[in-house]
Amino acid sequence: MFAYERPVRFEDVDAAGIVFFSRFLSYCHEAMEALFAPLDGGYAGLIVGRRIGMPAVRVEADFEAPLRYGDVVRIAIVVEQLGRTSCTFRHELTNTTSGTVAARVRHVVVLSDLRVLQKIPIPDDVRALLETLVPSEPVSSSSL
Amino acid sequence: MFAYERPVRFEDVDAAGIVFFSRFLSYCHEAMEALFAPLDGGYAGLIVGRRIGMPAVRVEADFEAPLRYGDVVRIAIVVEQLGRTSCTFRHELTNTTSGTVAARVRHVVVLSDLRVLQKIPIPDDVRALLETLVPSEPVSSSSL
Amino acid sequence: MFAYERPVRFEDVDAAGIVFFSRFLSYCHEAMEALFAPLDGGYAGLIVGRRIGMPAVRVEADFEAPLRYGDVVRIAIVVEQLGRTSCTFRHELTNTTSGTVAARVRHVVVLSDLRVLQKIPIPDDVRALLETLVPSEPVSSSSL
Amino acid sequence: MFAYERPVRFEDVDAAGIVFFSRFLSYCHEAMEALFAPLDGGYAGLIVGRRIGMPAVRVEADFEAPLRYGDVVRIAIVVEQLGRTSCTFRHELTNTTSGTVAARVRHVVVLSDLRVLQKIPIPDDVRALLETLVPSEPVSSSSL
Repeated sequence: MFAYERPVRFEDVDAAGIVFFSRFLSYCHEAMEALFAPLDGGYAGLIVGRRIGMPAVRVEADFEAPLRYGDVVRIAIVVEQLGRTSCTFRHELTNTTSGTVAARVRHVVVLSDLRVLQKIPIPDDVRALLETLVPSEPVSSSSL
Repeated sequence: MFAYERPVRFEDVDAAGIVFFSRFLSYCHEAMEALFAPLDGGYAGLIVGRRIGMPAVRVEADFEAPLRYGDVVRIAIVVEQLGRTSCTFRHELTNTTSGTVAARVRHVVVLSDLRVLQKIPIPDDVRALLETLVPSEPVSSSSL
Repeated sequence: MFAYERPVRFEDVDAAGIVFFSRFLSYCHEAMEALFAPLDGGYAGLIVGRRIGMPAVRVEADFEAPLRYGDVVRIAIVVEQLGRTSCTFRHELTNTTSGTVAARVRHVVVLSDLRVLQKIPIPDDVRALLETLVPSEPVSSSSL
Repeated sequence: MFAYERPVRFEDVDAAGIVFFSRFLSYCHEAMEALFAPLDGGYAGLIVGRRIGMPAVRVEADFEAPLRYGDVVRIAIVVEQLGRTSCTFRHELTNTTSGTVAARVRHVVVLSDLRVLQKIPIPDDVRALLETLVPSEPVSSSSL
C-alpha cells in the first residue's frame, strides 16, 4: 500500500462549494505519479524520457462524502490486478480531518507506447514496483 | 437525447499529449450544464439561486479512444434511470472528426440541498426536463 | 476586433465563490484560440501540424469586477503591437449580463518553433490574420 | 521571504508541451495559501471560517523560461508593499533542476469581506504575518 496526502486547494472547489468530481481523479493521478518516485526520473522519466504512459481505460468511482476547502485528503493505493499490459489500481480517498472515506476509485490503466499509443508489456522495473502494491490478501470486491 | 459539442482546448491535454482522463468528466458536466438551459436561469439558477445541486455519487467510465488537441467532442446524453432523488445519466463522447467513440460514461447524481448537502426529491421542473431524456426503448446495458 | 463569448463554468469558481484569477488567462487563451479559426486547421493546426506556438512572455491583468457562476463573459481582442517575432494582444473581458468590465489583460506572445522553443518570425498567414486586429486608431494606453 | 516547492504535474502541461501560462498563477496562489499556514486554520480558515479573502486586483508576470513535466518549481515570495487594505506580493518561480528563473510575478490583492466583496482593513494577525515577508531592503524595481 502506498499513501499520499495533499490539501484540497482553493481552486479545487466548484460553484456548489465542494471539490469538483473530476478533481477526485486528478487526486488519484497525482498520488499515482508520486508512487513512481522510486523509478529513475519518477513518472516523468517514464513519460518524457521513455515515452511510456498509462492511459486509463476504465474508471469506477464511488463518491461517499464531499470534500471541502480546508480538508486534507489521504489517497491510499493498492494494486488489485496486474496483467501483462494492464494494471488495476484501487484508490481510497480519506478526509484526514474527519477520518471518513470520501471516495473509492478503481482505475484500470494500460501500459502504452506514447509515440503510437499502442499497448506494450509492462516493463520489468515498473512491474517490480507495482508488485510491491499487491496486497497479500485479495482486495474485497464488496466495496466497489 | 441531448447533444452538445465543444472543441478540445489547448490546456485539456496532458504531458502524454492526449486529453487528461479527468477532463472527460468535465466535458460530461459541461454538457449536463448545457442540458439545463431550458430551466429559468439554467443550471446556475439551480445552484446559485435555489441552492439545489447534483453531486455525483457514482461514475463509471470506459475510455475507448484518446482525444487530442484539434479534435471536437460531441457529448450525447440520455437519462437511464430517474428515481425519487437520483438520476443516472449516460454520456457518449464521440470524436466528431473521426466518428469514433472516445468514451462512455455512466454518471449517477443525487439531487441535494446544497445548504446542508442532504438529498431531496427531484423538483417537478427538473424532473419534467429529465423525463424528456429517457429513451422510449431501454438503454442497452451491454456497453457499460 | 475579435469577440468571443463563453459562460462561466461550474468548475471555474473557487472557494471564495468567484472565478479564480488564473481562469481569466484561460478565458483569454480560449478566445485567442478561437481567433485563429480562419487559419487552416485553426490554432491546433499551428500547434500540432506546424509545431508553431505562441508562448506568453508577459502578461498584465487588471481585475476590475468579479465574475460568478451564471455570468457570461465576452472577450474582445485587439492587437496592440505586431513585431517581427512578437505580438501584443489586449483582451477586454466584459460581463454580458451587467455590461461591466471584469478585467483588462495585456498579453505579449512570441512566435516560437515548439521543437526547440526558439523564437521565429511571424509566418505570413498568421501576420495577415493578426493585422486585421490592429485598430486603425492607436489603443489608449491609459487603461493599462 | 517564504519559499514553497512543488513538482510540475502531469496535467499542468498544455498542447505545446510546456506548463500552461495560467498555471503559473495557480502556482503562485498555492504558495500564497501555504504562506498562511501559521494562521489558525490556515488560508482556509480565513476564507471559510472568517469569510475574508484576497482577490487579485492586478497581476504582472514575466515568463522567462518554460517549465516542463518533470521539473520542480520553487516559488519564493516577498511582500513588496503593505497598505491599509492591499498587499503586493512578488513571486519568483525558479526551476530547481536548472536553477533558472522561470517567471517573476507581481500580484496585488485587496483584503475583502467575501460576503459582500467589499475591501476591508487588513486584520491584525494577517498584517503581522505579512510584515515578516517585507524585506529589510527595498525590492529592486528593475526586474519587473
